[in-house]
Amino acid sequence: MAKTEVNVAVVGTGAVGQEILRVLDERRFPLGELRLLATARSAGQRYVFGGREYEVGLAEAESFDGVDLCFFAASNDASRDLAPEAVARGATVIDKSSYFRLRPDVPLVVPEVNGEALREHRGIIASPNCSTIQLVMALKPIADAAGLRRVVVSTYQSVSGTGREAMEELRSQSLDVLSGAPPRVKVYTQPIAFNLLPQIDAFGADGYTGEERKLMDETRKILRRPDLAITATAVRVPVFIGHAEAVNLQTDRPMSPEEAREVMAAFPGVILWDDPQTGQWPTPLAVAGTDDVYVGRVRRDLSVENGLALFVVADNLRKGAATNAVQIAERLVAWEML
Amino acid sequence: MAKTEVNVAVVGTGAVGQEILRVLDERRFPLGELRLLATARSAGQRYVFGGREYEVGLAEAESFDGVDLCFFAASNDASRDLAPEAVARGATVIDKSSYFRLRPDVPLVVPEVNGEALREHRGIIASPNCSTIQLVMALKPIADAAGLRRVVVSTYQSVSGTGREAMEELRSQSLDVLSGAPPRVKVYTQPIAFNLLPQIDAFGADGYTGEERKLMDETRKILRRPDLAITATAVRVPVFIGHAEAVNLQTDRPMSPEEAREVMAAFPGVILWDDPQTGQWPTPLAVAGTDDVYVGRVRRDLSVENGLALFVVADNLRKGAATNAVQIAERLVAWEML
Repeated sequence: MAKTEVNVAVVGTGAVGQEILRVLDERRFPLGELRLLATARSAGQRYVFGGREYEVGLAEAESFDGVDLCFFAASNDASRDLAPEAVARGATVIDKSSYFRLRPDVPLVVPEVNGEALREHRGIIASPNCSTIQLVMALKPIADAAGLRRVVVSTYQSVSGTGREAMEELRSQSLDVLSGAPPRVKVYTQPIAFNLLPQIDAFGADGYTGEERKLMDETRKILRRPDLAITATAVRVPVFIGHAEAVNLQTDRPMSPEEAREVMAAFPGVILWDDPQTGQWPTPLAVAGTDDVYVGRVRRDLSVENGLALFVVADNLRKGAATNAVQIAERLVAWEML
Repeated sequence: MAKTEVNVAVVGTGAVGQEILRVLDERRFPLGELRLLATARSAGQRYVFGGREYEVGLAEAESFDGVDLCFFAASNDASRDLAPEAVARGATVIDKSSYFRLRPDVPLVVPEVNGEALREHRGIIASPNCSTIQLVMALKPIADAAGLRRVVVSTYQSVSGTGREAMEELRSQSLDVLSGAPPRVKVYTQPIAFNLLPQIDAFGADGYTGEERKLMDETRKILRRPDLAITATAVRVPVFIGHAEAVNLQTDRPMSPEEAREVMAAFPGVILWDDPQTGQWPTPLAVAGTDDVYVGRVRRDLSVENGLALFVVADNLRKGAATNAVQIAERLVAWEML
């Protein structure tokens, strides 16, 4: 039988860790005990959550005794070292890091898209990269209805994907520039204020960045299409919250923009904002703080057989991170898997 | 014989008109008389240029008497009404508006790409849209070397493409947001500060915007490939100067990234900034104020046969507008066509 209350630990007190706390509260997750954990750097800090004050504990193996469910929203190293410890102590781990995502024995889950993969978990469940989540949310209903042959995606990714220090850098650099001072560079290698950085994460030997590689590999895994033809360009833009993606795709069978809008609008968690007549389309600013994936600019891509183009926007800290992780947790509760 | 001095008129005192004056000066164009002209709204303003002060005259048919060469950098209406008047009075017109660009009897010219088209002009020469110019500069050497089968482009376009009021709007809205005030919207329909607007220009019945349509149609005309498979998504980003484009293309014959880099680097006006090892790639901020087109992120697009991906950046006010127009003028002088 499902526990009525779940003992939860959240590892990581950055932008995503804090957003997970907010989303757990908003969605009235059946919380029992709550532990906030972090590496030595942040341990000892205090946070108020749900009217109670919490002191952040040091994340170590013993921290997970008595924990049913643990969210990891810290570094890859933290997940690598501590997630197996949490599992060994009986916890189920929902991991936001990229460390376990491509392991064959770890399900990589967007509940609306491949929730059934949760059934196969062995303790660790990975939540995908922010840019992947919003992409597969838009692709899944189209793939189901018309088959997916090829995907070309160019991203417009906000600085909150990097973290809180990057948000502070965008703020301070913007003020520098607007006051005529040279922008001070710390988090990124070049100024992000009023600029674009066509590199997210490190380069691989094939010329793709880690972020682009994640988008391609994770999409293939989630859609169970290891052969899917997909290519990505990932660009950091001077936006605080919200990622956008320009997507050109090709389906196996013909699909009109009207049909594409219909199947996407019927998909849970996807909202169509798409009316050229009234100039309606989604923007990062308009969707920040919401839990859904917004699609606009749906039209034929006439440059290829069965081509479609669309523009996908979501809050990268919410559906792109915290909300997706909490939705995984809700599914585990609903399916009595905790 | 070529005139040693050319009597020039510049119609329009906006961002592009002023940039044309700067570029004429920097490149030591053989100026004779210079007239600054504008519609009633700006007539009477004074500008200092080359150490002399000029009063902006009202642009009307008679303004073009004695003018050899006239740059139009004002509205489509101004070009429609006055360019034929200038031609009737013996001037050659270089038009930055979109009004004449797709007319079969008007050459649409990027000198490095299709300069020979100038030979066919009948008084009016059109300079392409900013986003088109930097795209065809990167595509032309690849098309010549390996044939071009399909192009998918997603743009990241700065507010200076809209004009000076939009630059002021980005500045003031950014200050609004950074001080916690609601951003005041005037030029665009939604805030551009720390946001993205996936609409540039009006929508057509096919769901493409005017900017996207220009990119597709103008590229086909300039490359003399009316059949070229090309699709575009145009997005306004919170950058002051400089447009970027994520380009995925397919060639007829196989071409390695190394070959692509080679042929582009050998093409006049294209500069490769492309070294993943050192994290070298172009950004709008880094190329602002320069006259060339910068290409980085050249890599295989493995999702399609003969696929390549690249990232193209240029100063939209310079090569994307003023510099290209002045280069057309220089070619006319060199070819003794004035």
